[in-house]
Amino acid sequence: MDTLHLDTINSIDYPIYFDNSIDQLVNFIKTGNYSRFFILTDENTAQHCLPLVKEKLGDIDNYDIIEINAGEESKDIDFCIGIWKMLIDFGADRKSLMVNLGGGVISDLGGFAASTFKRGIDFVHVPTTLLSQVDASVGGKTGIDIDSIKNIIGTFTQPKAVFIAYDFLKTLPERQVLSGLAEMLKHGLIVDADYWNQLKNSDLTFPAVELIYHSIEIKNRVVIEDPKENGIRKSLNFGHTVGHAVETYSILKDDGTALSHGEAIAIGMICEAWLSHKKIGLSKAELNEIVDVITSLYPKYLLEESANAELYALMQKDKKNQNGKINCTLLTQIGQYSIDNICTEAELSESLAFYATL
Amino acid sequence: MDTLHLDTINSIDYPIYFDNSIDQLVNFIKTGNYSRFFILTDENTAQHCLPLVKEKLGDIDNYDIIEINAGEESKDIDFCIGIWKMLIDFGADRKSLMVNLGGGVISDLGGFAASTFKRGIDFVHVPTTLLSQVDASVGGKTGIDIDSIKNIIGTFTQPKAVFIAYDFLKTLPERQVLSGLAEMLKHGLIVDADYWNQLKNSDLTFPAVELIYHSIEIKNRVVIEDPKENGIRKSLNFGHTVGHAVETYSILKDDGTALSHGEAIAIGMICEAWLSHKKIGLSKAELNEIVDVITSLYPKYLLEESANAELYALMQKDKKNQNGKINCTLLTQIGQYSIDNICTEAELSESLAFYATL
Repeated sequence: MDTLHLDTINSIDYPIYFDNSIDQLVNFIKTGNYSRFFILTDENTAQHCLPLVKEKLGDIDNYDIIEINAGEESKDIDFCIGIWKMLIDFGADRKSLMVNLGGGVISDLGGFAASTFKRGIDFVHVPTTLLSQVDASVGGKTGIDIDSIKNIIGTFTQPKAVFIAYDFLKTLPERQVLSGLAEMLKHGLIVDADYWNQLKNSDLTFPAVELIYHSIEIKNRVVIEDPKENGIRKSLNFGHTVGHAVETYSILKDDGTALSHGEAIAIGMICEAWLSHKKIGLSKAELNEIVDVITSLYPKYLLEESANAELYALMQKDKKNQNGKINCTLLTQIGQYSIDNICTEAELSESLAFYATL
Repeated sequence: MDTLHLDTINSIDYPIYFDNSIDQLVNFIKTGNYSRFFILTDENTAQHCLPLVKEKLGDIDNYDIIEINAGEESKDIDFCIGIWKMLIDFGADRKSLMVNLGGGVISDLGGFAASTFKRGIDFVHVPTTLLSQVDASVGGKTGIDIDSIKNIIGTFTQPKAVFIAYDFLKTLPERQVLSGLAEMLKHGLIVDADYWNQLKNSDLTFPAVELIYHSIEIKNRVVIEDPKENGIRKSLNFGHTVGHAVETYSILKDDGTALSHGEAIAIGMICEAWLSHKKIGLSKAELNEIVDVITSLYPKYLLEESANAELYALMQKDKKNQNGKINCTLLTQIGQYSIDNICTEAELSESLAFYATL
């Protein structure tokens, strides 16, 4: 595996490896002068990805494995406390390293736990899902949830390195691939119309590695320019104001129909494309194009009008808001984002109504 | 109050105000363009300090008060979660400000809660104890406890400003003043023999503001040079390896004789001065001088030999250790620190035995 011959991307003070990335990880550990390291994993990555990592580690044995349950529920502060306590029990010191082997939950949670343990130990990401490869593993955001409010607590802390293993994606169910694809589509929509056109004309059931590479390049460019999200980085929030609320709503509903992150962001992008058309000039033709591409990929989710009040309440808890106003990133055209658009409750409700008609 | 006419000290990107400091705080709030602010306080500062702050705030009313119980127990992660949830309920956004009005517990806990809420909101310190004025409020360390392990979780995050109100010290019981004094003595011992001599010849029942100013200057100089504690900042750990263990031990004992931070650090400084004499050449005369000054100020604490194993176990959990070895900052002479001295269990036990003979 891992013979991709793609260049290493340089992010803020750290490399993102594509080529022979698990060998690169082992080399990083060997040369890093760490007293001990800890592999954070869940039951899925423990089964599908950890064996290869262990094999490559060979006779290196100064590590412990911390396994958590797969799923967003594990990002709750209670699980984070559990990880901190395990690090204490395992005798982790300031020269310890955390290796986050998994999807976005693992990298967000492991990154936060590491960035605050003894005021910060080093960590690296080995993202194993498409979503975490193109999104969570790049940009230095860590985060955990409280009372199901996503990433309400976190830090901006860069990993020491990211290791992208394309082969791990082959173990993913299709729904997980689609979840990551939503962020890739977003990358095109916000800053790169050519990339959007390339994506919409590709077979997206399993995106080619070059597309993944391109998405990471886009995200990396954005976060390097604006690490603390004061300006251009807000472009990445397109689809996420409505999307996060819909995601949390579907989880809280707890009826077995919880949406994946990408499925929720897909809905959010449709609603926010509609808002873009209504408020800041996205053309009808481009709105239709966005809706067509997204609805051809993602299943319809039933959102009754009676859910609107709860969705709006969730949006009000969004970190991006200021002075209690709902703040959206929208599009003036495909490939051109616009930040800090205040949307009213009525407008947001209308956008949800638009989605319901599709 | 507050007409001290002492210069503002410039720390890492933020000012430390001495002169008319509560007026400066109000001015900071007025000009800071914050959507809302939150005053974190405990029942003591709510009674003795908050009324003056409220009076000076006048008709400014875009704030909420978060009151916690006084004492180290409030630094536990559970209380931190409580603060995060209150910030959520109060609708805190990224343009909110946390005002930490209190001692070290308030500044450590409030600083950590703020530095991680929505990945970081601004905070300022208004330290109300001598200890927090000369120690916790300068240097950008935030921290909370888990299972009584002090500051095991935290961040390095600088406040936006610090407001030193000397008059607040007049409300403190003598024992609290002594607690801060230990850190001041330490500042002299590690880097400034002249200051040590000045202190030992002063009336220390209520230190003059110029002494406090000098201590803050010393600490500030150290942390500016080494914010992340890779070198000189470790000098500040003198007395803290043994001291922290003794402090935690006395709290866990839970028999009503818990030591204050300064009382514990006083013991730690005696033990570590003894280690300095035994291991790296601190003269017998200077050891005796240190012991005399400290024992004349602080009451004796009974540490049975049977406590040594527990104390050693606590020292092993110290953040400063690497590879499981106990790492102490010692003195080659008064005014000259030496970092990274490995001490064995036998040496540490002997140092405790020395303290017991005094």
